[in-house]
Amino acid sequence: MRMYDVIVKKRDGGELSKEEIEFFVKGYTNGEIPDYQAAALTMAIYFKGMTQEETATLTQAMVDSGETIDLSAIKGHKVDKHSTGGVGDKVTFIVGPLVASVGVPVAKMSGRGLGHTGGTLDKLESVKGLQIEMSKEEFIHNVNEHKLSVAGQTGNLAPADKKLYALRDVTGTVDSLPLIAGSIMSKKLASGADSIVLDVKTGSGAFMKTLEDSEALAREMVNIGNNLGKNTVAVISDMNQPLGFEVGNANEIREAAEILQGKRVEDLRELSLEIASHMTVLAEVFSDYEEAYQALEKNLENGKAFASFRKLIEAQHGDTAMIDDLSLLPQASYDIEVAAEEDGFVSAIDAESIGVAAMYLGAGRATKDDEINHGVGITLQKKIGDEVKAGEALVILHSDEENAQASINKVKEAYNISKEKVESPTLIHKVIK
Amino acid sequence: MRMYDVIVKKRDGGELSKEEIEFFVKGYTNGEIPDYQAAALTMAIYFKGMTQEETATLTQAMVDSGETIDLSAIKGHKVDKHSTGGVGDKVTFIVGPLVASVGVPVAKMSGRGLGHTGGTLDKLESVKGLQIEMSKEEFIHNVNEHKLSVAGQTGNLAPADKKLYALRDVTGTVDSLPLIAGSIMSKKLASGADSIVLDVKTGSGAFMKTLEDSEALAREMVNIGNNLGKNTVAVISDMNQPLGFEVGNANEIREAAEILQGKRVEDLRELSLEIASHMTVLAEVFSDYEEAYQALEKNLENGKAFASFRKLIEAQHGDTAMIDDLSLLPQASYDIEVAAEEDGFVSAIDAESIGVAAMYLGAGRATKDDEINHGVGITLQKKIGDEVKAGEALVILHSDEENAQASINKVKEAYNISKEKVESPTLIHKVIK
Repeated sequence: MRMYDVIVKKRDGGELSKEEIEFFVKGYTNGEIPDYQAAALTMAIYFKGMTQEETATLTQAMVDSGETIDLSAIKGHKVDKHSTGGVGDKVTFIVGPLVASVGVPVAKMSGRGLGHTGGTLDKLESVKGLQIEMSKEEFIHNVNEHKLSVAGQTGNLAPADKKLYALRDVTGTVDSLPLIAGSIMSKKLASGADSIVLDVKTGSGAFMKTLEDSEALAREMVNIGNNLGKNTVAVISDMNQPLGFEVGNANEIREAAEILQGKRVEDLRELSLEIASHMTVLAEVFSDYEEAYQALEKNLENGKAFASFRKLIEAQHGDTAMIDDLSLLPQASYDIEVAAEEDGFVSAIDAESIGVAAMYLGAGRATKDDEINHGVGITLQKKIGDEVKAGEALVILHSDEENAQASINKVKEAYNISKEKVESPTLIHKVIK
Repeated sequence: MRMYDVIVKKRDGGELSKEEIEFFVKGYTNGEIPDYQAAALTMAIYFKGMTQEETATLTQAMVDSGETIDLSAIKGHKVDKHSTGGVGDKVTFIVGPLVASVGVPVAKMSGRGLGHTGGTLDKLESVKGLQIEMSKEEFIHNVNEHKLSVAGQTGNLAPADKKLYALRDVTGTVDSLPLIAGSIMSKKLASGADSIVLDVKTGSGAFMKTLEDSEALAREMVNIGNNLGKNTVAVISDMNQPLGFEVGNANEIREAAEILQGKRVEDLRELSLEIASHMTVLAEVFSDYEEAYQALEKNLENGKAFASFRKLIEAQHGDTAMIDDLSLLPQASYDIEVAAEEDGFVSAIDAESIGVAAMYLGAGRATKDDEINHGVGITLQKKIGDEVKAGEALVILHSDEENAQASINKVKEAYNISKEKVESPTLIHKVIK
């Protein structure tokens, strides 16, 4: 088989066979197929697409290119959850304990990466002493014992995806639906869960800006999962503004903990219940969505979900005092109000700009050597649809510098005020099974 | 400027600016832009095309990437001729002397390369002693003195094209019209002629199989030439069968010499006169095509064209005895007839198969270290439209081996015999100015 022929076949709109896709993924991973041929193929895929079968085959080949995590020592049906990423997205910290509280094991492997705020691990490390590095045995023990553990990703998962993504990133082929879907799903599938719930964000602050594109991505990923024998559900949720009110690290943990204690932050609570419901139905703990939803909502009210969260912190050597008294979590030195300049209604909040404003404060990493400042962040005071008077705070910046002008400017850029009343955006756009 | 943005702009159907194209060509030539980004861009160009202006800019940038040949020391208007390649194409050996015979300087730089038969230089070297290596001064002296010289290409012409072509060749992007046209024209333009006549082949034995594709390529190249200040004319000529009757090296020289002596091999003579007419009109030696055609035809009859040819051989130290008596040119040991197996009319001759049959005999190079056998080759006895009886020769193979079975099989594959009378194909399909 020649890579040249594989490229030309795809270029001409042909459907690649299993053998051809495996030949490419293996050859590219081990260096026998050069970057330039892979770049030509991915650009051809960008233009010609891939069938569901091709996409599933590609994904499986990328899974097979490296290690996979064996979770078989964990009792019960393991359900994983993945978000395509947004600003203020602390759903994992709510859903994990919530799902664990009804007995579903959650074995969460997470990364750090670059971003406006920290990743799952960075946010958790806002709690003093909390350890995310542990042996495989300890991880599995924790999940079996407490139904929940969060660990740093180890092992060489889907190296073909890593290599191919790095190439796509510099050759203009990131925006290819089958390649995006295959990339996300290869990592999820290598992580060993039995079922997967995807939180596909849509809107100005999401990778996919339109509902149409988000739905297409969701369908592509659900197809891959189902094709490869993993029940997969995708929830398409709104990212036209940050989720909840907190953007940062410690303040996101605080907001998540408050939800787990029964606080009603509507969008965040609602989306968490939605995702947790699908996860527990997939795990066959409940027979349908309504039953799951009611049981989970009860656990937010009766303290069981919060107890799961506290147990997670304790088991991973975190300072539980910080959880018992959330005001002990890291806090920045200065609170700086950014006020509205006119009366009206909030009509748009560019989530990405809010994210950048948080990064300017030190909440995220621009390069992989940057250190996260856990205490800084942004608290939204107004969300889309809210009425606002000139001089009233739109957000409060939590800063360790007295001067946060760059962040202030970014926040002002992010907010749009209109004269007419605006509706709050729909939160859950669609569920794809 | 970032190469990534150039790729994405083209991927999205944008028109690249002069600065962007020059940035790419310079960066790729000097190694700052990696192969994988060039591969992604060329695949995007494959799908999205280039405007006339982009194509001209690309061509000029490739010319500027290396040396250009300065022919200004040659008196008069220099016209170059280029063929897109076919089997039995010995037009250069006729057109060169013919054009020189009316005073137009022909400074021909040629290569060797791989192919079914030798290149221009290899074919000329069928004449014992003939030298194609000479100093620049000698080359220019020869042209000024005799109006004609053929030399091996020296200098680093259009290195960007060389590098890019090699990449396209392994990434499935050879078949892109603007890239093909730019590649051909960059080499021609670097060779320093004032005007260019292109012989664009069309048909089963050509790179472009359909008239539509050939015409598109011709227009693309004419546009580039005219855009870059070189008068350019393209003749679209038929390559549904080999040109003339001889395929090889010495036998092609012999056939060309016979035309120059007035012999009427219709397709070959006609195409040579056509191309020479356009060349001499571009050189402003004649005011129009008809005038040029008549004068050139006269020089085929009166010996002047042949005298030019003989002078070329003499000036480059070739054995003129071989020209005065063409039977002294190298000849193979065996003549092997390949006969028709049924009565009928020749309806098709796959030129490429005839080329391969010649290569099997030793007429060409499969790898660059192969040596050419000048004496071997094929003489067609029947062309499209000819009536043939079973047992009558279709071709005569000139072989140095008694057993030429592989060639015989290839020839049999090449010929199609039908029961109905078939018309001979049109020779000159179109002229594009």
